[in-house]
Amino acid sequence: MIDFAQIVEAQKRIGHLIRKTPVLTCAHINRRLDAEFVFKCENFQKTGAFKARGATNAVQSLSGSEAERGVVTHSSGNHAAALAWAAGLRGVSAYIVMPSNAPKVKVAAVEHYGGKITFCEPNQSAREATCQRIQQETGAMLVHPYDDLRIIAGQGTAAFEFLEECPDLDIVMTPVGGGGLLAGTSIVAKSQQRPIQVWAGEPRNVNDAAESLRTGIRQPSIGERSIADGLLTGLGELTFPVIREHVDEIRLAEEAMIRDAQRLIMERMKIVIEPSAAVPLASLLENSVGIAGRKIGIILSGGNVDLSALWQPTP
Amino acid sequence: MIDFAQIVEAQKRIGHLIRKTPVLTCAHINRRLDAEFVFKCENFQKTGAFKARGATNAVQSLSGSEAERGVVTHSSGNHAAALAWAAGLRGVSAYIVMPSNAPKVKVAAVEHYGGKITFCEPNQSAREATCQRIQQETGAMLVHPYDDLRIIAGQGTAAFEFLEECPDLDIVMTPVGGGGLLAGTSIVAKSQQRPIQVWAGEPRNVNDAAESLRTGIRQPSIGERSIADGLLTGLGELTFPVIREHVDEIRLAEEAMIRDAQRLIMERMKIVIEPSAAVPLASLLENSVGIAGRKIGIILSGGNVDLSALWQPTP
Repeated sequence: MIDFAQIVEAQKRIGHLIRKTPVLTCAHINRRLDAEFVFKCENFQKTGAFKARGATNAVQSLSGSEAERGVVTHSSGNHAAALAWAAGLRGVSAYIVMPSNAPKVKVAAVEHYGGKITFCEPNQSAREATCQRIQQETGAMLVHPYDDLRIIAGQGTAAFEFLEECPDLDIVMTPVGGGGLLAGTSIVAKSQQRPIQVWAGEPRNVNDAAESLRTGIRQPSIGERSIADGLLTGLGELTFPVIREHVDEIRLAEEAMIRDAQRLIMERMKIVIEPSAAVPLASLLENSVGIAGRKIGIILSGGNVDLSALWQPTP
Repeated sequence: MIDFAQIVEAQKRIGHLIRKTPVLTCAHINRRLDAEFVFKCENFQKTGAFKARGATNAVQSLSGSEAERGVVTHSSGNHAAALAWAAGLRGVSAYIVMPSNAPKVKVAAVEHYGGKITFCEPNQSAREATCQRIQQETGAMLVHPYDDLRIIAGQGTAAFEFLEECPDLDIVMTPVGGGGLLAGTSIVAKSQQRPIQVWAGEPRNVNDAAESLRTGIRQPSIGERSIADGLLTGLGELTFPVIREHVDEIRLAEEAMIRDAQRLIMERMKIVIEPSAAVPLASLLENSVGIAGRKIGIILSGGNVDLSALWQPTP
């Protein structure tokens, strides 16, 4: 199990390597939902997402001989870029297994940070087999995107900084996919002196985390699509028990509302966020019961989104 | 004429009403241009642009009887929204003359802030005539978007805050249209103990400010189009002499480079900026002579840009 002390340790280990992201507010959103919002902007984090925290904590935790052999992961998303970046910081090799159909922009990000990419067939068993082969060949250590205590502790540092800056939150809220950010956040929130509720936002299309909490049994990923493409995975073996113990509520968001919330934040707050980051606000726009007059802290998870439509020639 | 003391006064007058905007950095841009950049993010300013500074200074400078009669301006851009907002802060009427073909989103912003809109034919003489009629009918005071000492002093507060936070700049840079921001910035920079160069970026399509500096004679607006739609006006009677005295260099930017610079800032820094705000960086991407190894502060002027293409259904 993981406790608050490990997150404090992680903060000491990575605080000087990652970015202390700013907390922003928006009068318009406050008025619209009759609550006081503060947003922890992990879209400004190194590599454009909170994932840099967990990856840095994992890489910095390696022993000297482990570091020589490197790290390996399979991911087509923010974790891949974050691990490549964090490995580069320490001069460690990062082997990244990506599906052959991964978006070019994701591949380019991993290459940019110096990750060594191996492509595989776009299915789970090919990913895992390729990962295993690389582990055997290189001795590299697997760093799972969320089901890893070092990752959960690292992701928790976002909430650690957030509550240090805004200790008077009534509710802290994150998106939930595999649950690394949510688990880390919940441990930090529940270790504070004053009671802080922990909520998550999840796309209704992939509501496996909400179903896991409701049934008390970890549900597999639903396999549906969502615009919030960072949230398609199910909870992990390590993240689920933490979330079951500490998380008070998971609220769901329709796809159209996720788009609306992303647009609201980009147009009003003038910051670039990815759809996954908009899910908590989207879930409150859909169902605002219980938030009136309360102070709500939302962790905006990342800002890696394809903006190329803005520069298309107008038809 | 206007001097540094008036900008210090303006800072005292408006500092508690406007937002102290953050200063952000970007390792990627530093590497690409081999210089150290800091960006003063006026896209996060109230109403989404630095214009809130000048407008607030003008409105807060009104006497009690002037305030009762209100303010009037003709503008279809950020100044209109800023004046409506600043007037609302003090409970003062803001009469805004807009051309009948003004973009809906601009009209909506002025309405949102409580401005009283009068539409007119989309030409300069109709605008001025309508403005004059409203002045006669209401006694409202004209607040010009840039050729007004209160406006110049207010816009100068952005540089005042910037140099307070980053006193070691070698060069400070803004976009230039009518010249309010540039004039205010130049006064602040040239009143510092250590020498700070003042540069501006201007679209090559509308290079009247550069031509005015080169010839020593104030040139009228070129009348060409630019994607940087906040920079189409010529320098004012009041801004030109300040700029001629204090500004060291105006660099030009092609339209394609303005788009590239906007995209670079949005994708890398995860902030939303309008094309006009991208012009200084664009001009340096086009011509980087003289910047290697220097510390350059750029004021990102605003973030009011139409993002709707991002949420269009994909064809």
